[in-house]
Amino acid sequence: MGPNEQKVDTQFFHSPAPFKLRNGETLPNLTLAYETYGELNQARDNAIWVCHALSGDAHASGIHAKTGKKGWWETLIGPGLAVDTDKWFVVCSNVIGGCTGSTGPSSPNPSTDRPWGLDFPLLTIADMVDAQKVLMDHLGIRSLKAVLGGSMGGMQALQWAAAYPQVVRNMVVLATCARHTPQQIAFNEVGRRAIVSDPNFHGGHYYDGHGPDLGLSVARMIGHITYLSETSMMSKFGRRVREPGASKFEPAFEVETYLSHQGSAFVDRFDANSYLYITKALDTFDLASEGGSLEAALGHFKGRALFLTFSTDWLYPPSQLKEVATALRRSKGNVTYVEIDSDFGHDSFLLENPHLESLVEGFLENPARGGLPPGTSAEV
Amino acid sequence: MGPNEQKVDTQFFHSPAPFKLRNGETLPNLTLAYETYGELNQARDNAIWVCHALSGDAHASGIHAKTGKKGWWETLIGPGLAVDTDKWFVVCSNVIGGCTGSTGPSSPNPSTDRPWGLDFPLLTIADMVDAQKVLMDHLGIRSLKAVLGGSMGGMQALQWAAAYPQVVRNMVVLATCARHTPQQIAFNEVGRRAIVSDPNFHGGHYYDGHGPDLGLSVARMIGHITYLSETSMMSKFGRRVREPGASKFEPAFEVETYLSHQGSAFVDRFDANSYLYITKALDTFDLASEGGSLEAALGHFKGRALFLTFSTDWLYPPSQLKEVATALRRSKGNVTYVEIDSDFGHDSFLLENPHLESLVEGFLENPARGGLPPGTSAEV
Repeated sequence: MGPNEQKVDTQFFHSPAPFKLRNGETLPNLTLAYETYGELNQARDNAIWVCHALSGDAHASGIHAKTGKKGWWETLIGPGLAVDTDKWFVVCSNVIGGCTGSTGPSSPNPSTDRPWGLDFPLLTIADMVDAQKVLMDHLGIRSLKAVLGGSMGGMQALQWAAAYPQVVRNMVVLATCARHTPQQIAFNEVGRRAIVSDPNFHGGHYYDGHGPDLGLSVARMIGHITYLSETSMMSKFGRRVREPGASKFEPAFEVETYLSHQGSAFVDRFDANSYLYITKALDTFDLASEGGSLEAALGHFKGRALFLTFSTDWLYPPSQLKEVATALRRSKGNVTYVEIDSDFGHDSFLLENPHLESLVEGFLENPARGGLPPGTSAEV
Repeated sequence: MGPNEQKVDTQFFHSPAPFKLRNGETLPNLTLAYETYGELNQARDNAIWVCHALSGDAHASGIHAKTGKKGWWETLIGPGLAVDTDKWFVVCSNVIGGCTGSTGPSSPNPSTDRPWGLDFPLLTIADMVDAQKVLMDHLGIRSLKAVLGGSMGGMQALQWAAAYPQVVRNMVVLATCARHTPQQIAFNEVGRRAIVSDPNFHGGHYYDGHGPDLGLSVARMIGHITYLSETSMMSKFGRRVREPGASKFEPAFEVETYLSHQGSAFVDRFDANSYLYITKALDTFDLASEGGSLEAALGHFKGRALFLTFSTDWLYPPSQLKEVATALRRSKGNVTYVEIDSDFGHDSFLLENPHLESLVEGFLENPARGGLPPGTSAEV
């Protein structure tokens, strides 16, 4: 058995209490799917909270007991790995709004006993993090050694540090930004248009029949273009043609076949309404809106921050996270900003990368810098 | 009346002769919609051939007599402008495969008397240029002072110089490349997938009812993202919200409303099948395949070349046309390559830009350099 082949199963936290969203609306109850790896220590302060990206789920590490699937961050999290589950108690929760076990638009609406569909309230990144904080308290965790996430997970990590600076001792933030540019909004919006334009969308109440599979597939294809770099696409596909297309406009170039496959596969595992809600949460996220500036938003965070970007990531260009690092420095924060050279575009943060792994490991160990006793919220 | 407000009307060239495509298939006849501006001189050698981009048409300059619309390159072409129609006889033809008057998939198929739909043969950029050469001969033009085009028009200009070096004396090529990268193919492919996935597509035979409007609209939205730069989007839209959306996933950010409008407007003026055929021609274009290399492809072209790119064009990054310039220099070509500083992304080539205009004007006038007598194919 390899180091990261432990069987894990997804757990479910059900809170019967109403969960209040930032916009004033209330979810009548809350369910979060989550997984944990490693053991919480006696002081209950060795937890690392992992936040997932747009299409991620709670299964970040190990082998899933039911599906047999590897975790989506298996290269980073596990026994003896950079995020060492022999030392840390790692938690990863599916976000609210999601479709892999947490309360979302495909969950039953208690007032109708049918899936919420578009009657589900609009969500924000802050709501996702607030819900995770409820789970954290439920698990008896006193404070977090670190929050850790890339892409949308990175937004959540920033939001954790902004909203809960008293429990977040450190943060590791990868390949993300503090708010979307219009171009980033635009890519998401075209995907949303493809979904809501699909005749099978039926205003979001499609759970009795076929969903808007074609629209969701197109949305995913657009996403995939933005996850890869020009360089990685060129080395992966070039202009190779798989076969003379059976009909004129079947995928023929290898890159077309790849995208088509990615689109179809996504439809089997993701809910179109969740795609709408989560991309909208991405687009409306604006860290600076809490407190009026990035400096103010992160002003109460007293820990260390590791910000990692990737040279060929054009979806979240390094300049965006560098801007947050600069703001954090201005507010006297202890921040390490690194742009990692990588050919793999935005996807880099999910891929095996020795530089990434040693930076994260070194940041979490931090033996040289010493610092305050573990468990205090001022540990640096 | 301003300098560029002359009334013009689109003309139609009908050739009853079969038109042979490069793949061996034959169109039973050929119609090309075209416009001309200025007068052909006695020597029949003052013509400038203008090639349009993906969604363009024959109406490049002046005010259309029927629609009242301005030409799409009205800032560049007209009396006293950079392409001075008081001096040059300018011709612009709608490409075959198009939907604004030239033979294309929406034209009647003589063997069925119904629109061709997907029975129309696949086309290439070379076919488009070959058809224009038939029109050029019909118009009695002996040689071209220049071919001129941006984006897909630039591919045609390169193809003119490669295929007809004996009649193309000079070329002006803007914001394009000699072949698509997988990323460029990918953006087109997602648009095509959106079209063929639309339930109203009906395998391309949709002319009796509603066409695949939603798919075509999504395709156009994707296109528009690639035509703008991050910078221009930021200054044009920022993160401004137009109004609280009536329903949850209506466009709310201004950039969303803009894209949605662009998508809807396009559906009213463009045929989805033409979009499929023309984008496929873009993706399959590979100038180096003629002769085995760029040098060989352009080896017989003896004129001057002006290559213009734009700093923020990320759809056709300057590096791509620079590569063609380098190849042309290696084959002893006389090429001027300029990267123009502009905030407007790929769209820059269509917008008013004094730098662009003076470069084109200077290149066409070329009084200082003298050169061979006009009318010879070796004029430089």
